[in-house]
Amino acid sequence: MNDEVLLNKIHSPDDLKELNLNQLNQLCREIRDKLIETVSQNGGHLASNLGVVELTVAIHKVFNTPEDALVWDVGHQCYVHKILTGRLDQIDSIRTEGGLSGFPKRRESRYDSFNTGHSSTSISSAFGIANAKALQNQAGKVIAVIGDGALSGGLAYEGLNNAGRFKKNFIVILNDNNMSISRNVGSMARYLAGIRAKPAYLRTKHRIEKILLHIPCVGKIIRNFLQYSKSFLKNLLYKSTLFEDMGFMYYGPFDGHDLGKLIDILQVAKNFKKPVLIHVVTKKGKGYPFAEKDPKSFHGVSAFDIETGETPAGGKNFSSVFGTLLCCMTEADPRICAITAAMISGTGLTEYSRIFRDHCFDVGIAEEHAVTFAGGLAAGGMLPVFAVYSSFLQRGYDQIIHDAALQNAKVTFAIDRAGIVGEDGETHQGLFDVAFLNTIPNITVFSPTYFEEMAACFQNAIYQCRGVAAVRYPRGGELYKPDDFCPSDDPYDVYGNPGAPYMLVTYGRLFSFACKAKKALEQEGISLCVLKLNRIKPIAEKALALCALKQKVFFFEEGMQCGGLGEHFGFLLSQTGFAGNYRIKAVDGFVPQAPMDRALHSLELDDQGMINLIRNECGQ
Amino acid sequence: MNDEVLLNKIHSPDDLKELNLNQLNQLCREIRDKLIETVSQNGGHLASNLGVVELTVAIHKVFNTPEDALVWDVGHQCYVHKILTGRLDQIDSIRTEGGLSGFPKRRESRYDSFNTGHSSTSISSAFGIANAKALQNQAGKVIAVIGDGALSGGLAYEGLNNAGRFKKNFIVILNDNNMSISRNVGSMARYLAGIRAKPAYLRTKHRIEKILLHIPCVGKIIRNFLQYSKSFLKNLLYKSTLFEDMGFMYYGPFDGHDLGKLIDILQVAKNFKKPVLIHVVTKKGKGYPFAEKDPKSFHGVSAFDIETGETPAGGKNFSSVFGTLLCCMTEADPRICAITAAMISGTGLTEYSRIFRDHCFDVGIAEEHAVTFAGGLAAGGMLPVFAVYSSFLQRGYDQIIHDAALQNAKVTFAIDRAGIVGEDGETHQGLFDVAFLNTIPNITVFSPTYFEEMAACFQNAIYQCRGVAAVRYPRGGELYKPDDFCPSDDPYDVYGNPGAPYMLVTYGRLFSFACKAKKALEQEGISLCVLKLNRIKPIAEKALALCALKQKVFFFEEGMQCGGLGEHFGFLLSQTGFAGNYRIKAVDGFVPQAPMDRALHSLELDDQGMINLIRNECGQ
Repeated sequence: MNDEVLLNKIHSPDDLKELNLNQLNQLCREIRDKLIETVSQNGGHLASNLGVVELTVAIHKVFNTPEDALVWDVGHQCYVHKILTGRLDQIDSIRTEGGLSGFPKRRESRYDSFNTGHSSTSISSAFGIANAKALQNQAGKVIAVIGDGALSGGLAYEGLNNAGRFKKNFIVILNDNNMSISRNVGSMARYLAGIRAKPAYLRTKHRIEKILLHIPCVGKIIRNFLQYSKSFLKNLLYKSTLFEDMGFMYYGPFDGHDLGKLIDILQVAKNFKKPVLIHVVTKKGKGYPFAEKDPKSFHGVSAFDIETGETPAGGKNFSSVFGTLLCCMTEADPRICAITAAMISGTGLTEYSRIFRDHCFDVGIAEEHAVTFAGGLAAGGMLPVFAVYSSFLQRGYDQIIHDAALQNAKVTFAIDRAGIVGEDGETHQGLFDVAFLNTIPNITVFSPTYFEEMAACFQNAIYQCRGVAAVRYPRGGELYKPDDFCPSDDPYDVYGNPGAPYMLVTYGRLFSFACKAKKALEQEGISLCVLKLNRIKPIAEKALALCALKQKVFFFEEGMQCGGLGEHFGFLLSQTGFAGNYRIKAVDGFVPQAPMDRALHSLELDDQGMINLIRNECGQ
Repeated sequence: MNDEVLLNKIHSPDDLKELNLNQLNQLCREIRDKLIETVSQNGGHLASNLGVVELTVAIHKVFNTPEDALVWDVGHQCYVHKILTGRLDQIDSIRTEGGLSGFPKRRESRYDSFNTGHSSTSISSAFGIANAKALQNQAGKVIAVIGDGALSGGLAYEGLNNAGRFKKNFIVILNDNNMSISRNVGSMARYLAGIRAKPAYLRTKHRIEKILLHIPCVGKIIRNFLQYSKSFLKNLLYKSTLFEDMGFMYYGPFDGHDLGKLIDILQVAKNFKKPVLIHVVTKKGKGYPFAEKDPKSFHGVSAFDIETGETPAGGKNFSSVFGTLLCCMTEADPRICAITAAMISGTGLTEYSRIFRDHCFDVGIAEEHAVTFAGGLAAGGMLPVFAVYSSFLQRGYDQIIHDAALQNAKVTFAIDRAGIVGEDGETHQGLFDVAFLNTIPNITVFSPTYFEEMAACFQNAIYQCRGVAAVRYPRGGELYKPDDFCPSDDPYDVYGNPGAPYMLVTYGRLFSFACKAKKALEQEGISLCVLKLNRIKPIAEKALALCALKQKVFFFEEGMQCGGLGEHFGFLLSQTGFAGNYRIKAVDGFVPQAPMDRALHSLELDDQGMINLIRNECGQ
């Protein structure tokens, strides 16, 4: 057989319908090669996509997408789906500026039923689609595919709770790749591990069911009797799973790489008249030995060498600096402890979790719980630090208000990935944290630009602030620092001549660009001072005073303009009697995927953007 | 026995330790009388407190609070707890300005371990306290009391998932009062109903356990063998509940009004070395026939007549106007449907849920799911309207961004209780919605002042706006409307002479006060125009233009100042070349309980506050 022929022939899922099992298995191999090739060049989510090759092929073989709606939880495992739904020729562009997204996007294809990116949304959104179909008498099944990790999120449970009483077909596929198994990651993970181990009662149950399913009429009657009876006998014979307790029919666990079996069970599942959960066990990284061996490293990767499996070594970055710092601080003060929502590695806590095993809480993908849990730890006299990506902390907004700020709890947030994150795109940009924290009383927020500022920020946050505090820092490393700038521990720093007629105000990473812009503008004869806010909430009055007499003040912000710091600063400034011009350049919409520097350039938030705006306003 | 003697003798839970079962039962009767008397005067949560009298007495009898930490989920059932923990003499002040809170408050008593108010937080916060004790080797048990309704919230599940693997004692008491049972309220509710019905396997299990528990050494060994073995025999004999699947030992269901039994089981539970869930069945309203018969009406009540059980009839209010309106709109367009998070009655949807049974989704106390589910319904072609209290919508912040705004989903929010809510106090104030919605792109927000504006707002929201829209309105009814003011369908209205030198800008309920202030100030010779914003996001450019030439502009806002609309408006105004003075009066902290008018007065947001500020700034 010609290896190239099959994959290139697939222009839509309809083309799968013609293929036999052998051909489909060949197709799976071709898809794996394509995935490895693509991700080795662009970076991206490799291991999870390698794990769902057979599952995705089986789904598109059995169902009629897009009439049948398919929702991928989180969504980073959608590459195979994109390849099979007419996007093979664009797959090389995935995660690049202007290219395919690494997540499902409705605007990209009618096969993408719902945008995803954050965890645990699929059951809720798919159940919404299912109800919309029911109310409008539209044809089509609805399928949500959710990972075992995403099942630790409360939103998934809320979805199950709501969907469990549905009177029609609704299919949840649990893609269990055993990735949430670690010491702290919850009882659901342990429960799934128990099922995976196939205890006797499940085997018995399946054996009975298998027999019953194969006796057309009589079997159905007996099965239904057992399923709906409340008899003692039934309860003895028919051990129910947690999913059955939640109202779902449960089938599994199945080998997620046995294509024939997957196709069979999906065929059966689509004909039930109630919600059904299919438990599929897959192997992350399946088919690429390096990824099978180390699926965590190949979860989200940069470009790598296919032959050696070598990924570029990560250098020092804000996450690693934070991790090291928190080790030192916990060593000195055992009241400090760390919380992470399934992001030990991403937030730089790997070392910490080894050294301070008892002080490190991985609570699963459960940001709401993480915040409230932190509130409890603080009420008990600890000094918890919740390390979390900016975009995921959005999940905890109410809990920050209700379980932390309202009680002045000594909770500290270490907000990673604050600002533009790059290739993950709009769902993952950390552009809201400053604005939403700004709305909450009793919170202090710091925004360091350089590694060396981190220690003072966390010292301040944990020991000087009365209640809730946050330190926010970007993805990756520090950027340009002028030789003649020396960071302080103060709420703000000034770079340049405080007597200059124009002031550029900014914070965090943008300070690096501001320094460059200042130098370039000075060459053009525009005298500019840069005010760097280190503590961005509350704003220091003295920082405002520095701006009060300026002709023009420019505020640059890597975050939302509406409700952001620039508007707040502007109002405070206006109350000082400021009579000059005030300009804000910030973000006013969702920001698509692009490398960080490219995205900041498009937003006119890099040095060039600053130069252009200020030159326009101040140039002769 | 002298009825008065017992209750008045209880100055702290220590005083319970001396009493025998008969005395404790008498105490329960006295507490019930006190509760009925207090709530009939002050209003408050009656039925839920009547339901937990025995449970609260049993807890304080068995445990040593405050060393043993007790967390009440939601918290409105804490009146008995307050009475028993030294606050009997202040209980008459409950929910009044300056009085006891209707919810647990740490600043009020060291017996209140954690503040609550929003649902489903107790397991997370109590587990935080338990870990703080463990890490610091502090003595004391930790107990979370959570209702069956609160168990529909994902946060509770995240807490169970995290706590289920704890290696020490941790007690969750499920106070199951059967209040989340209704057609749409989820599979967990149905599951609990199943347990309550005591199927054979649970009875068998309890019988076995009871026998085993009473054979000191041998019994313990056999019990442990059964509990931890994975044998087929065990799985047959020992049907596990969902809570056991989640890692908890499960005991129940018990009669929550059998004080002796409650004390016994709590004694047993506090000695286990792992997490345990005690399932207690209580009757809402227990002991007051009117409340037993109609617990919903006596959930949260205004003052009522003890003899007749008559509560004042509710008049027309924004919730009821919304409910009627949505009925009309759904009649005309079956794509419209309603979602509520366990607030059918509170949001005015009772009638709707009867008429449009299939179009009304009560998803449980699950605001996150409600938003994402709405996103799914919209993706499926429906026009969902999520009716929700302002302070609870805080829970859906990430989902509004991620599952609605980012996809430009046609989701509409009907935000009830926007602004000051009164007696429920700081956890329930609707003061954040404008500020947090302000941070999100692709959203349109309307803020009507009068009933007659509601229809146009919802028509606009559902049919004119491209993506997400919200209509926000306050608790209760409309306030003062001048005879010479006629509302329009425009994004803003002007009341008074547009040529006046001063402009007062506001929206929503405060417009009523602004009209009064304007009249009063005119009498003093201060000529003021009032700009009423109907569409508060985005701001109409023409509305800004009306202010551009004013000497002074005053912005009054019943919401947070930081990140709020006033700051945003001020920035936009500054970009028009506005050279006058700009003042904001808004909220800059958490607002404690007080009647709405009193609270607005304290915040200087009523007509008097407006008059004072403007007179100060503009008076001769």
